[in-house]
Amino acid sequence: MNGADRLCDALLANGVDVCFANPGTSEMHFVAALDAKPQMRCILGLFEGVVTGAADGYARMADKPAATLLHMGPGLGNGLANLHNARRAQTPMVNIVGNHATYHRDLEAPLSSDVETLAGPMSAWVKSCDAASVIACDLNAAWSAAIAAPGVATLILPADTAWSEAPDTPVTPANRPAPAAFDATAAARVKQALDDGKRVALLLDGPALRAEPLEMAGRIKAATGLRLLAPTSVSRIARGAGRVPVERVPYRIESATTFMADIDVLVLVGSIAPVAFFAYPGQPSLPTHPDCEIIDMAPPGADAVGALAALDTTLDARTATADTALPDRPADGPLTGGAVTALVARHLPDNAIVVDESITTGWQFMDQAKGAPAHDMLDLTGGAIGIGLPLSVGAAVACPDRKVICLQADGSGMYTVQALWTQAREKLDIITIVFANRSYATLTGEMTRMGVPDPGHNAQRMMTLDDPSIDWVSMAWAHGVEAVSADTVQAFEEALTDALAHPGPCLIEARI
Amino acid sequence: MNGADRLCDALLANGVDVCFANPGTSEMHFVAALDAKPQMRCILGLFEGVVTGAADGYARMADKPAATLLHMGPGLGNGLANLHNARRAQTPMVNIVGNHATYHRDLEAPLSSDVETLAGPMSAWVKSCDAASVIACDLNAAWSAAIAAPGVATLILPADTAWSEAPDTPVTPANRPAPAAFDATAAARVKQALDDGKRVALLLDGPALRAEPLEMAGRIKAATGLRLLAPTSVSRIARGAGRVPVERVPYRIESATTFMADIDVLVLVGSIAPVAFFAYPGQPSLPTHPDCEIIDMAPPGADAVGALAALDTTLDARTATADTALPDRPADGPLTGGAVTALVARHLPDNAIVVDESITTGWQFMDQAKGAPAHDMLDLTGGAIGIGLPLSVGAAVACPDRKVICLQADGSGMYTVQALWTQAREKLDIITIVFANRSYATLTGEMTRMGVPDPGHNAQRMMTLDDPSIDWVSMAWAHGVEAVSADTVQAFEEALTDALAHPGPCLIEARI
Repeated sequence: MNGADRLCDALLANGVDVCFANPGTSEMHFVAALDAKPQMRCILGLFEGVVTGAADGYARMADKPAATLLHMGPGLGNGLANLHNARRAQTPMVNIVGNHATYHRDLEAPLSSDVETLAGPMSAWVKSCDAASVIACDLNAAWSAAIAAPGVATLILPADTAWSEAPDTPVTPANRPAPAAFDATAAARVKQALDDGKRVALLLDGPALRAEPLEMAGRIKAATGLRLLAPTSVSRIARGAGRVPVERVPYRIESATTFMADIDVLVLVGSIAPVAFFAYPGQPSLPTHPDCEIIDMAPPGADAVGALAALDTTLDARTATADTALPDRPADGPLTGGAVTALVARHLPDNAIVVDESITTGWQFMDQAKGAPAHDMLDLTGGAIGIGLPLSVGAAVACPDRKVICLQADGSGMYTVQALWTQAREKLDIITIVFANRSYATLTGEMTRMGVPDPGHNAQRMMTLDDPSIDWVSMAWAHGVEAVSADTVQAFEEALTDALAHPGPCLIEARI
Repeated sequence: MNGADRLCDALLANGVDVCFANPGTSEMHFVAALDAKPQMRCILGLFEGVVTGAADGYARMADKPAATLLHMGPGLGNGLANLHNARRAQTPMVNIVGNHATYHRDLEAPLSSDVETLAGPMSAWVKSCDAASVIACDLNAAWSAAIAAPGVATLILPADTAWSEAPDTPVTPANRPAPAAFDATAAARVKQALDDGKRVALLLDGPALRAEPLEMAGRIKAATGLRLLAPTSVSRIARGAGRVPVERVPYRIESATTFMADIDVLVLVGSIAPVAFFAYPGQPSLPTHPDCEIIDMAPPGADAVGALAALDTTLDARTATADTALPDRPADGPLTGGAVTALVARHLPDNAIVVDESITTGWQFMDQAKGAPAHDMLDLTGGAIGIGLPLSVGAAVACPDRKVICLQADGSGMYTVQALWTQAREKLDIITIVFANRSYATLTGEMTRMGVPDPGHNAQRMMTLDDPSIDWVSMAWAHGVEAVSADTVQAFEEALTDALAHPGPCLIEARI
């Protein structure tokens, strides 16, 4: 048994049985080891951003980490943007990066680079495993770190660690780390604040946004009148009919400041304190009122569900009724982003997974789908565009019995468009809806906001995606995915209902 | 005038007038500043790997750096693989990365990450410019570092540096740094070695591979009988009829060891000492004989042309005759990689630029095009696949009057396929030839070499690109590039001659 075989054994012993991969020459012994384990599902991405984004989507839905397999510093580099998003989503991931043999890596071979330094900023844990004898131990440490953070644990695998002889004793899996305790004094402080007539809001994130914890939060809201908030972007949130709705912190700092102006006490349950997405001249960095008291009851990784249970008890909460309003059906006419999302909300199948990287175009879905059939929603968490298509791949692998609908902005979709090929190869049940507005509309909006309403040639050329327009139907076909284009409400609705009636990947280009 | 305006002035003052870009919200003030400078050419890439690879190709052909514009840590991450290749190619580049405002960057905003740490491994120079008052000074330092290394100088631009008031005095450009001196004692040592009957080879790289220095090297070879070598992959090499041919160090370590077995003295002229691409069990890391003396006459960045002139004088060299053999024209029959490259060599127009990322499929071009019309050839220098299409973009921008032919492997081409859109938008005169073998053939070769001639399901799924096959004609059309597919020698030759007869981008899928 070599180190690579033992690494596979250790992954499987810890329940990691899906590996999203784009290997290279230095990973060939690991590929041979994976080849000997039919219980490991290996899924190829044609670019590493697909690999890391899919591993993120998988873990968000499977509630356990996938492994990745990347090729050295450049392969890791290509995967970093979606590792960034995974870090911001608190996603556990065992990120395996091959490297040169230990004795070769400091020579100036063409592919040499400082893999550990590159991995640092996006990882909760980094280690290079430099001996086959300790590889199971190191994998256990990586897995534990991924669960505990939760986050990305990067295990670097030099080629000679993979090919050298390793012990063939059985691998003992790691013990699952318990989440850190929540602040047990917080519930009483929240009660006191409410008793004092202060205006309180809970900012929920991470495990607090699943259906059952939201039910508790809804009871607490009904009993006390406090507000339930979620960050602008979340890893996963349970929504739809029968689910407790929460208010989202608005993206724009001006709106967020207004939104939070009346909050005297903000209680963090699985979340970090809110921060403006970007700084702007003359605007604050923090949306909370300067006098707002922030109670950090359960930071990311701590027991957010236990925290809600403590509040439920301390505040003597009762049952709340979820908002189950039905979306409006839009009239026929030119297709807009809002019409597309209204139709998605209207036709949403039971228990769907909605991946949202629609950026400026699909934001109305949040309200429109409040009363749609119960569904989970996955967001772009770290602002690093190019996650929608990969995230949908991972979610579909994790939940093969659920329909995945990917709301995909065109500019962002181009970043990791290669994910369409993995959708086709793995025959994943994903409907990708491309909001084709042929621009980086965020940027045109920002330019207007800066007081430049009529940008010139150079600025236009950096914000528009026409000349030529992307042909998304050809793009899908090129990757082996069926596709159709729609530019009216009626055509879009027909395409959507047709897609919903058939399993397997397809793409609808919504020309808005 | 704000910091962004002054940065533009400083770029132009130093002769940097092309900016490959994919900006985001934090770069909007810089975009507004570029917008006010029509003499700056701004070229959008739909993914940052396109941006950095194009800046590499531009500088290799224009002999001056381009600027890039990337969006924060994730945008930099997406560009890292081609920054790695640029670093290995000794390419000067002014790599501008936007970041949060100085007072915002350490808050946990969604896009916050440690940009400086991420930039380090692939950059020769990194600085965050934290005040608008020093931005011209910092740009001059970045430009000088890019020229001196030569390499990637990363200047991080916090948003408040861009929008804050800056001095509006004229910008004084930086002084061009002189290359480091070569080792003046080396020529006499080479002469002594030759006089002692030792077998000597020059390993040429960087500026030593341009036409005139190669002419000197050819004279030296004729006068002394020493060998002329170049690394397996080079940044740029002048080739074809009338040019002095050099031997390339083979890729495989077994072949490279044999190739260098008779060399007693290896003289480095613009190059580093050769190292095996990867380590393998039981194989050496270095291809040179253990007793081989290595004379480091001119390391990368030093005056390699001066070093050749010194050898020319000291060794009393005469004129040599270049090898101008014509390639064979292949018989009709099934299309192979060798047939494709033979036809490219046969039909190569005068003064073409050939970008080679054909990996396993196009290696015969090196011999086949020895006697083709004079041309420049640009290689994948750092082993980080996904540079061919972007490199061709940059080369075509730098040299609008020359035909660019991109020899592109299919697996590598998928990494940065978005570059096709920039080819279309900028109407660049590029013929992309995709070698469609529907596999990562390097990996299947490595697997065989490891003693696994018949890989199983998991391994096959990570090395083959069929099921489904990529449809490259649809892929090109999706990006706005005309395309045709060919699967016989005759059909390919017709497609190639047709493409050569028309300007503008087109793609030929060579189904081999």
